[in-house]
Amino acid sequence: MAKKDTAQDLGLTVKKDEDFSEWYTQVILKSGLADYGPVKGCMVIRPWGYAVWENIQSWLDKQIKATGHKNAYFPLFIPEGLLKTEEAHVEGFVPEVAWITHGGEKKLEERLAIRPTSETIMYSMYAQWIRSHRDLPLLINQWCNVVRWETKATRLFLRTREFLWQEGHTVHTDKKGADVEVKKMLDVYVDLAESQLAIPVITGKKTEAEKFPGALYTTTIEALMADGKSLQMGTSHNLGQNFAKAFKIVFKDENEKDQYAWQTSWGVSTRLIGAVIMSHGDDKGLVLPPNIAPTKVVIIPILFDKTKKQVLAKSKEIMKDLEEKGISVELDDREEYKAGFKFNEWELKGVPLRIEIGPKDIEKNKVVLARRDTGEKTDAEIKTATNAVEKLLNNIQKDMLKKSKEFLNKNTYNAKDYKDLRSLTKSQKGMVRAFFCGDENCEENIKEETGATTRCFPFNEDKKGKCIKCGKEGKLILFAKAY
Amino acid sequence: MAKKDTAQDLGLTVKKDEDFSEWYTQVILKSGLADYGPVKGCMVIRPWGYAVWENIQSWLDKQIKATGHKNAYFPLFIPEGLLKTEEAHVEGFVPEVAWITHGGEKKLEERLAIRPTSETIMYSMYAQWIRSHRDLPLLINQWCNVVRWETKATRLFLRTREFLWQEGHTVHTDKKGADVEVKKMLDVYVDLAESQLAIPVITGKKTEAEKFPGALYTTTIEALMADGKSLQMGTSHNLGQNFAKAFKIVFKDENEKDQYAWQTSWGVSTRLIGAVIMSHGDDKGLVLPPNIAPTKVVIIPILFDKTKKQVLAKSKEIMKDLEEKGISVELDDREEYKAGFKFNEWELKGVPLRIEIGPKDIEKNKVVLARRDTGEKTDAEIKTATNAVEKLLNNIQKDMLKKSKEFLNKNTYNAKDYKDLRSLTKSQKGMVRAFFCGDENCEENIKEETGATTRCFPFNEDKKGKCIKCGKEGKLILFAKAY
Repeated sequence: MAKKDTAQDLGLTVKKDEDFSEWYTQVILKSGLADYGPVKGCMVIRPWGYAVWENIQSWLDKQIKATGHKNAYFPLFIPEGLLKTEEAHVEGFVPEVAWITHGGEKKLEERLAIRPTSETIMYSMYAQWIRSHRDLPLLINQWCNVVRWETKATRLFLRTREFLWQEGHTVHTDKKGADVEVKKMLDVYVDLAESQLAIPVITGKKTEAEKFPGALYTTTIEALMADGKSLQMGTSHNLGQNFAKAFKIVFKDENEKDQYAWQTSWGVSTRLIGAVIMSHGDDKGLVLPPNIAPTKVVIIPILFDKTKKQVLAKSKEIMKDLEEKGISVELDDREEYKAGFKFNEWELKGVPLRIEIGPKDIEKNKVVLARRDTGEKTDAEIKTATNAVEKLLNNIQKDMLKKSKEFLNKNTYNAKDYKDLRSLTKSQKGMVRAFFCGDENCEENIKEETGATTRCFPFNEDKKGKCIKCGKEGKLILFAKAY
Repeated sequence: MAKKDTAQDLGLTVKKDEDFSEWYTQVILKSGLADYGPVKGCMVIRPWGYAVWENIQSWLDKQIKATGHKNAYFPLFIPEGLLKTEEAHVEGFVPEVAWITHGGEKKLEERLAIRPTSETIMYSMYAQWIRSHRDLPLLINQWCNVVRWETKATRLFLRTREFLWQEGHTVHTDKKGADVEVKKMLDVYVDLAESQLAIPVITGKKTEAEKFPGALYTTTIEALMADGKSLQMGTSHNLGQNFAKAFKIVFKDENEKDQYAWQTSWGVSTRLIGAVIMSHGDDKGLVLPPNIAPTKVVIIPILFDKTKKQVLAKSKEIMKDLEEKGISVELDDREEYKAGFKFNEWELKGVPLRIEIGPKDIEKNKVVLARRDTGEKTDAEIKTATNAVEKLLNNIQKDMLKKSKEFLNKNTYNAKDYKDLRSLTKSQKGMVRAFFCGDENCEENIKEETGATTRCFPFNEDKKGKCIKCGKEGKLILFAKAY
């Protein structure tokens, strides 16, 4: 964790396909994305990592608002009684709640939960605010921290006891309104994953066993990581009237009749950053898609005593041009490090594009552009460098998604029979398509025998066939080992 | 708290100068800024209030970044031992800490504090990250929630057990670097208060008794509320080397010699919204300065059956023009409410400018513009309405600050002697200027006998005189009753 000054310590000491888990941790610590905090399972998001999160937030917040939602903020503390109002929800969350027992030196009369998610506290307020169908739909989103006292091993970004997220919580007059909302926000998440994070996702419905505690049904976006494991990147739930009944969220309809409301909730978290690291990183470190990179371009001047002044002046000109185009750029003019050291450091941090400029380049009126994703180097005329940079950044963004799509396609398999499923999941190859009857016993057995879980019934694939486990009629589903 | 549908219930039932405290609470609840949550002392920030906070954040975040700081995120939980590392800090904060004792059903080995402020957790990390003078200055800011288990009566926005804020924490090689930083960020806060919130502030240094626990010295911005009480709106501290010594934040200087670092911290919180309410609100409700209003302009069409279509079409045209200019605008086309009801509702919510448009206005090619701050109505030609709106919004912002400045000047007094101080503070008239020796006994006695506390030694006023309490040599200071 301590800052080191030699190139050797800076770089990764393992390869991605040799020790994926150690590689993942090293990328995070050495690129400056995050660090371990003093409390087990709690991470510090360092400026480089937080800036990635801010870029994700900024894009997503715009979409959340454009779809009619408003942000609000509800308390961190949930009284124990309130948390236990909805039955399925209790079972799902109470085992991993952190409890406040003392305020100052005084023991509290009722324990307070640190929110693991905010359904209960929000809906106790919604019940007070909502009176009439005219108050609906109520479309609220919250950006905040939540705490789940994980007993499983924690991992930076993927599973931490505290994490940052957004949680949308909406109320509608009927099921259709809630259905439309669930789908609308899942589509926003698909767009976020693909257009911003360059990660293709599969969308679908969770099984009864895997749905959100208290929901009618849960939809999900699932992505395939480089090690062949699946990652649930975001979920969007139709909560039906379950919470409305538990919290008495009742509205008068157009005929002045009392009705229970229909609700949805949906969220994505800092886990998305984990997905970006695993999907795109390589043996040199992080590779960031341009759309979420805190710095899209780094300029590294090649400095010699005689030509330093000229090279720096030209570098600054280029920097200014890029800034005017709204492209975030950094000029690394530190003199205590050599260019090669800087190349390594910025590659480790995942900056999408590097501009190299030295005295010989200036003589030829050119600069060198080096792509982080492919390592490819091209020359660009200084005059038109900003256009070349803009074009390249667009290409990088597109190519990264294309590469990830190819990976997903290549690593999606069809299991003919149960033996096939066992062998495919044993080698942890990727997503496995098979038919499944929906029975929780089958699901549990498959999980025990293969280590793989159901990821989702993919949308837009209405194929039916015999359950790979029991032979009864089933629907197409995806299995994978998962984070 | 329940939503009511009659104009009478919507409006305020007390006047600002009759029952300030009740008026304050009604404005917040009825304008939809916030609500009481289920846990005592914890508030729900509703969409209207959160949007004000987002506008404040957005402006301030830009300034924080423009001055070279980067955002990061540190854990919510601080181990008890860590919180108690710096002696003065312990005394100041431990009595009002909320403690986690259980994770899931397991008792924790060491209690965890919910952060009341993040010095201790941040600096334990800084000690690991900082090695060399080349790592400095380290300029980090965090936006987050913090918890202080207040034993005093809580008040919405002003004193809640959980609140939202930003906390900047910087590290420098020498005292001068820290001094410059403290001043720089205090200046940003002054700019925020005056240019955005339209609240004039007095800047100065806190006494030893009132400084931040663990600081070398504390600077503050103080504002005068409409009831004659002072409100501390933001602080910027030079922490000296106190925390660096406690947490071993040591760097190698240019001669490779170990040195303790110098540090600063500075913060403002959602309390600022309380200041806005108290400073500008009136008997009709909230009055928002245009720069932080979620909606700057509301268009209220006067709807009659025959001309409805035409009036709505024209209203939408005007809305579109305003949106194109980047002015946030809402068209209130609800048909179930009359125009007068809508006027009251939007006045209660504090929207700076109302546009009224009816069939007769359209005949004359004009609209009516009504200022929220003064109630003044003017006509504008439809063609040039957006320009008129832009100009008016600028004027409102300026005039609101001007009015507040006049109020501050009018309510700032000089106390000739102690009797004078007692009578001025007894009537709670405002800020009282007097000389003070700096002795903690004098300060404590004055507080007990007058109810007033020292607010700050104002900057740029080097006057000296005899202490109003003991007669020893003193410096000019401000006294006031305070929130």
